[in-house]
Amino acid sequence: MNSRYERIYENLPEDVDVVIIRNGMKTDTNFFYLTGYTNGIFELSTCFLFRDGRLDVVTTRLEEQAAKGKGHRVHVAKESGPKGLRAEMEEQMRKVRKAGINYKGITLADYEFLREAFKGVKFVDVSDAIDVARRVKDPGEIDSISKACRIISDVVSAVPQMLSHGMTENDLKAEIEYEMMKKGASSPSFPSIVAFGENSAIPHYSPSGRKLKAGDTVLVDVGARYGLYCSDITRTYFYKEISREQTQMYRVVEQAQLSGLEKLREGETGRSAYQAAAKVIDSSRFKGRFIHSLGHFLGMDVHDGYGRALSEGGTEPLKANMVVTVEPGVYIEGRGGVRIEDDVVITKRGYRLLTHAPKDLTVVR
Amino acid sequence: MNSRYERIYENLPEDVDVVIIRNGMKTDTNFFYLTGYTNGIFELSTCFLFRDGRLDVVTTRLEEQAAKGKGHRVHVAKESGPKGLRAEMEEQMRKVRKAGINYKGITLADYEFLREAFKGVKFVDVSDAIDVARRVKDPGEIDSISKACRIISDVVSAVPQMLSHGMTENDLKAEIEYEMMKKGASSPSFPSIVAFGENSAIPHYSPSGRKLKAGDTVLVDVGARYGLYCSDITRTYFYKEISREQTQMYRVVEQAQLSGLEKLREGETGRSAYQAAAKVIDSSRFKGRFIHSLGHFLGMDVHDGYGRALSEGGTEPLKANMVVTVEPGVYIEGRGGVRIEDDVVITKRGYRLLTHAPKDLTVVR
Repeated sequence: MNSRYERIYENLPEDVDVVIIRNGMKTDTNFFYLTGYTNGIFELSTCFLFRDGRLDVVTTRLEEQAAKGKGHRVHVAKESGPKGLRAEMEEQMRKVRKAGINYKGITLADYEFLREAFKGVKFVDVSDAIDVARRVKDPGEIDSISKACRIISDVVSAVPQMLSHGMTENDLKAEIEYEMMKKGASSPSFPSIVAFGENSAIPHYSPSGRKLKAGDTVLVDVGARYGLYCSDITRTYFYKEISREQTQMYRVVEQAQLSGLEKLREGETGRSAYQAAAKVIDSSRFKGRFIHSLGHFLGMDVHDGYGRALSEGGTEPLKANMVVTVEPGVYIEGRGGVRIEDDVVITKRGYRLLTHAPKDLTVVR
Repeated sequence: MNSRYERIYENLPEDVDVVIIRNGMKTDTNFFYLTGYTNGIFELSTCFLFRDGRLDVVTTRLEEQAAKGKGHRVHVAKESGPKGLRAEMEEQMRKVRKAGINYKGITLADYEFLREAFKGVKFVDVSDAIDVARRVKDPGEIDSISKACRIISDVVSAVPQMLSHGMTENDLKAEIEYEMMKKGASSPSFPSIVAFGENSAIPHYSPSGRKLKAGDTVLVDVGARYGLYCSDITRTYFYKEISREQTQMYRVVEQAQLSGLEKLREGETGRSAYQAAAKVIDSSRFKGRFIHSLGHFLGMDVHDGYGRALSEGGTEPLKANMVVTVEPGVYIEGRGGVRIEDDVVITKRGYRLLTHAPKDLTVVR
């Protein structure tokens, strides 16, 4: 908790009296990052992280029990509706002249509310400072992400045994999600992608009633949330038979991932990992078919910390204890695709793999 | 589609050339409402609904296949990163002088991007017009919500048979979510609440390893998403035995729900339904323990259309084809709570119940 406060305040672009995270009807994960809450929903709640390290929470009676017990000062609106919350916020803002807010999380409507309610206060964007802090994980966070990765690795390792002729993408998705919940996940960390055959060519595909048949590519891109933290893994299998093209796609993507991984270490840029992977694909017959970045930061959000992690734009040096995904892919519209994705922690000398599901080319018989 | 366009434009507070929904790293359900897309994720994508009814979509190569086939004009960024998207947006904005945006959905950062990129354009808030349109569902939407309600009703009807001594809240949650997926749900529509015993007193509780034992209240507040549409139901059961207090709580909440439901019809306010339910509770020994509103609008978002539906602030007359939840509750900290929730469509003369799980007081033996 304390180290989070320090990392945010040391990165602030200018002196602010307080950092405010305001939830609307949708909540900002930074609210949970700062408060450390793991329970409750906290719609319409606000937290105030003052320069002296004090943390105050303004919330409703609905969340009162969830808000207690973390040592923060909790202020519950005495009246329901916006008026009661505003009165408690005014109490917190009495001495504030300059407040930092998260431009990337707050809605324009909530910002207009703050501006109107606190006319004398100057609001400045501190989203970059929060993002920079969040990209480097503390030990507790790495522990949670590791557990999330272990759960999803165990589940995905069993996917070849789950496949059967005629099952639908939705069936497989239900099995995968059930298994992750039984192993302790709180939810999938994003809408699970399960794509058979030609559908595997659509990177952001939503599963359907499409049935599994011989010769299909089977792409699963799934994640488990453990506590508030995400994992994110992709494996691609082949059902009953495999074509020459499918084999070549797999070999190229496998090699691209290896080349990307080899670049990872503290001080290296994400761009160089991206370029190493892209070079493998663009030197093959699949040139031009790697249409997304090599990876993103991972944490409380699946796309965490808003950085351009492993991409052409990833020009910032990587730091130890950042967690990123490494996920090259190749897609041929109407035929199919292959993607292989793992999660890793950046270390001083390289990286540590968090996802351990086998990724040898597998034809499920 | 067309009727959605008309309902939004007829509600606009002033003449705008275009309504823009811009997704950031988080997506705005209005993007899917306007485009009719049911597949794809569409981060960083933008749709433009012009005054003449034309709809243009600017997106990335990642979403190209998902974007096709709805008859919209789809513009795919030729270059990856923000620059490519901006170039395509500039093309759409060439003749725009005044643009409506969703203040309740767009982040401040995305708004700053629009302001900077399109300096001559005046941006105005059209969120209320969109919300008002969305609150009244078209037949296709009611059909999807009804299917979502049927799925979750079937699942919840079987909860009494799922209970066994020593099972955890997490176990029951996993069973419920697995069953909804097997019945065709695309996901839970919100983090499922499963609370045993004293935990049922926390309205926004997150399930844990707490084990079921005799005398426990069992509260499940769960929803299934069918396609993009949500359902939301709560049932409260008692395991093995029931105390006098638990019985009284159930009877009072049951009566409060009936009294609220009886008020519902087109032209009536949500407030009068809220007050009718609150009166039942506040006339009982549980006075002051109904600490949230009676219900919310339901649709693509669980809390849909941002209105103060059935609450003290719900002073707008209800309209036919609005869909709302009706969910009174009573909570005693450290002991337990009872909540009963159903989803209904408002009609000219009353309401139509969409959730059909039994709600007679049930002690599971």
